[in-house]
Amino acid sequence: MSDTARLEAFSDGIFAIAATLLILDVNLSGKGSVLHQLIGAWPSYAAYAISFVTLGIVWVNHHTVFSQIGRVNRTFLFINVMFLMVIAFSPFPTRVLAEHLREGSKAAAFAYGLTFTAMAVCYAALWFYAAIGRRLIAEDADQRTVSGISRSFGPGWAIYATATLTSLISAWLAVILYAAIALFYVFESSIFGRRGG
Amino acid sequence: MSDTARLEAFSDGIFAIAATLLILDVNLSGKGSVLHQLIGAWPSYAAYAISFVTLGIVWVNHHTVFSQIGRVNRTFLFINVMFLMVIAFSPFPTRVLAEHLREGSKAAAFAYGLTFTAMAVCYAALWFYAAIGRRLIAEDADQRTVSGISRSFGPGWAIYATATLTSLISAWLAVILYAAIALFYVFESSIFGRRGG
Amino acid sequence: MSDTARLEAFSDGIFAIAATLLILDVNLSGKGSVLHQLIGAWPSYAAYAISFVTLGIVWVNHHTVFSQIGRVNRTFLFINVMFLMVIAFSPFPTRVLAEHLREGSKAAAFAYGLTFTAMAVCYAALWFYAAIGRRLIAEDADQRTVSGISRSFGPGWAIYATATLTSLISAWLAVILYAAIALFYVFESSIFGRRGG
Amino acid sequence: MSDTARLEAFSDGIFAIAATLLILDVNLSGKGSVLHQLIGAWPSYAAYAISFVTLGIVWVNHHTVFSQIGRVNRTFLFINVMFLMVIAFSPFPTRVLAEHLREGSKAAAFAYGLTFTAMAVCYAALWFYAAIGRRLIAEDADQRTVSGISRSFGPGWAIYATATLTSLISAWLAVILYAAIALFYVFESSIFGRRGG
Repeated sequence: MSDTARLEAFSDGIFAIAATLLILDVNLSGKGSVLHQLIGAWPSYAAYAISFVTLGIVWVNHHTVFSQIGRVNRTFLFINVMFLMVIAFSPFPTRVLAEHLREGSKAAAFAYGLTFTAMAVCYAALWFYAAIGRRLIAEDADQRTVSGISRSFGPGWAIYATATLTSLISAWLAVILYAAIALFYVFESSIFGRRGG
Repeated sequence: MSDTARLEAFSDGIFAIAATLLILDVNLSGKGSVLHQLIGAWPSYAAYAISFVTLGIVWVNHHTVFSQIGRVNRTFLFINVMFLMVIAFSPFPTRVLAEHLREGSKAAAFAYGLTFTAMAVCYAALWFYAAIGRRLIAEDADQRTVSGISRSFGPGWAIYATATLTSLISAWLAVILYAAIALFYVFESSIFGRRGG
Repeated sequence: MSDTARLEAFSDGIFAIAATLLILDVNLSGKGSVLHQLIGAWPSYAAYAISFVTLGIVWVNHHTVFSQIGRVNRTFLFINVMFLMVIAFSPFPTRVLAEHLREGSKAAAFAYGLTFTAMAVCYAALWFYAAIGRRLIAEDADQRTVSGISRSFGPGWAIYATATLTSLISAWLAVILYAAIALFYVFESSIFGRRGG
Repeated sequence: MSDTARLEAFSDGIFAIAATLLILDVNLSGKGSVLHQLIGAWPSYAAYAISFVTLGIVWVNHHTVFSQIGRVNRTFLFINVMFLMVIAFSPFPTRVLAEHLREGSKAAAFAYGLTFTAMAVCYAALWFYAAIGRRLIAEDADQRTVSGISRSFGPGWAIYATATLTSLISAWLAVILYAAIALFYVFESSIFGRRGG
C-alpha cells in the first residue's frame, strides 16, 4: 500500500469507530417505567443521529480530498492528525448534548457546534493546503474537479460557525440547524452524486 | 478502491465494532456471590447472543446486496447511512433488554424488536431501490440471482414486525421468537450455502 | 474479495476490537492514594495481559485455519459465528476476573477458563470440520501441513479444560496456568515459527 | 496477503481503536453549570490530545519498521504482541492522568510516562531485533535507510524515560515535556517528511 492509501485506511478506521462509539453515550435515566425512560431518552437519539450522519458526511468528504491527492508531506500529515483528533473527540460533545439538551443548555449546544466547526476548519485546511498551487494534487487530477471541490467545500466552516453562534440565542434552534445542515449535505453530497446520477 | 468497495469496507467496520461493543453491556449485578451473579446474568448472555448472531446474519446479507451492485448514487448512499445508523444503534436496545428482561418488560422487548424491524426495512429498501429496473445492478449480474434475492429477502421485515408485535403479549415470547428467527436465518443463509454446498 | 477473504477480514476486526476493549475494564478502586490504587490494580493488569496475549495467539491460529481453506459453506460459517461470539465475549470474564481475583474467587477463575475452553473447542470444531476428508481444504494445500495442524491444534481444548478445572482447587493456580499456557503458545506458535526460523 | 501485511493490518486496527477509545475517558465532573464543567475538564482534553498525537506518531514509526521488513519470525511476533499490548493499554494511564492531573498527582504523571517509555522500548526492541545483522530486513532495503532509522529511533526511549523521571519533581513539568515530545516528533516525523518535502 502507498503512504496515502495507508493514511486513508487508518482514517477510515477512526471514522467507523468514532461513529459506533456514539451509542455508548445513549442511556436511560433509571427513573420511571422502561417505556417512559425509552421515550424520555429522545435527546440522546437526536444527538446520536445528528452526529452519526455528520460523521458519515465528513467521511465521504474526506475521501473526496484523498481521491485528488498524489502525495503527502509532513504538514499535510499534521493537519490530518488534528482532523482525526477532532473526529475521535466528537462522541464527547455528543454525550454532553444528550445529557443537557432537555434543559436547553446553551453551553452544551455551543460545545457541540464548536466541534463540528473545528472539523470543517480542519477539513478546509486539509483541502486548501493540498490544492493551492496543486501542492499535493495528483498529476492526472482534472483541474476543473479540483476547482469544483474548492468552491463547494469552502463555505462549510462558515455554515457551521454560524449555526454554532445561534446556540447563544437558543440551544434548540442550534440543534435544529445542525440537523438541517446534516440533511442538506446528505442530499447534496457531491462525490457520490456525480457518478450514478 | 472503487466507491462501492470503500462503502462496503466502511460498512463492515461498523458491523464488526457494533457486534463487539455488545459485550460492554453485559454486567454483574454486584449482589450476592460471584457464582450467583454469573448465573443471574443470563438475560445479558441471551440478549448478547441474539444480537450478535442477528448482526452476523445482517452482515452476510449486506454483502449479498453489494455483490450484485455495480454503482452507487446519492439515494442509495443515504439509505445505507440510515442502515448503518440502525446497526450501530443496536447495542442500546440490547442493553435495555439485558437489564429489563428478568422483569418481563414488554417495552424493552418491543424496543429491541423495533430495532431489528428497522434494520430489515432498511435492508429491504437498500435492495429494492437498487434492484427495481436493475437501477444499480452490475451489468454482468445474473437476473435469476437478482430475482432470487428479491424473493428471499422480501419477507424479512414482516417476520421481524410480527415478532415485535408479540412483545405486546409477552416479552418472553417475543425474545424466543427473535432467537428463533436468528437461528433460522443462520441455517438458511443463502449466500454462503449456495457455494460450498 | 472472495468470500473467505471477506470472512477473514471481518474476523480480524472482531479480534482487534475485542483485544482493545479489554482495557476499558482496567479501573482504579478510588480508595487511597493514586500510587496505592495503581499498584493495587495489579489483578486487572494480569487479567488484561493474559487475555490480550491469548487473543493474539488465537488470532494467529485462526489465520492458520484460513490459510488452508479453499471455500466455505453454511456449517463452517455457523461455527465461525460461534467462534467470534466467544472471542467478542472474552472482555466480560476478563473484567469479572480482574474484579474478583484478589479475593481468590473460584467462580471468576472458572468462568474465565471456561471462555477460553469454549474458544479452543470452537477453534478445533472449525478446523476439523474443514479438514476431515479435506471437506473445505484448498486443492493446492499440502496434506502434510494439514495433518501437522491437526496434530498440533487437537489438544488445545483439553489443555484449557484441565486448567479450568484446577480453578475448583484454587483460583490462583488456575490463573497461573492460564498465563503459562499463553506464554507456551507464544513461544511455540507454529505458523510464524515455520518461516523465518 | 503476506504474513507481514496481515500483521501490519492487525496492528493498525489496534492503533486506531486505542486512539478512538481515549475519548471514553473524557468526562464532566457533574458539579456546577455545564459551561464550568466543560471548562473544568481541560486536564481530560490535554491528556486526550497528548495521547492521541503520541499514538499517531508511534503508528507512523511502526510503519517505518514494517516498510523495511522482509519476513517475520517467532521472536519478532512476540515483541510485536508486547508492543500492541502497551498500545492498547494506553487509554488506562490517560484516564488516570485526566482524573488526577488537577491535583498534580506525581504517580499519575509517572504511570503515564512509564507507558510511553515502555512503548518506546518495545519499538526500539522491534526495530533493533529486525535490523541487527539485517536479520529480518528485506533484501532490497537500502542499508543507508536502515542505518538512518537506527540512528533516529535509538534515543526515543531515553527521551521518554527522562521525561518520566521529571514527574518525580513535578507532574506538571512532566506533562509539559510529554506534550513537547509529541509535538517535536510530529514536526520531525522522518518517514513522511522524506517524501513530499
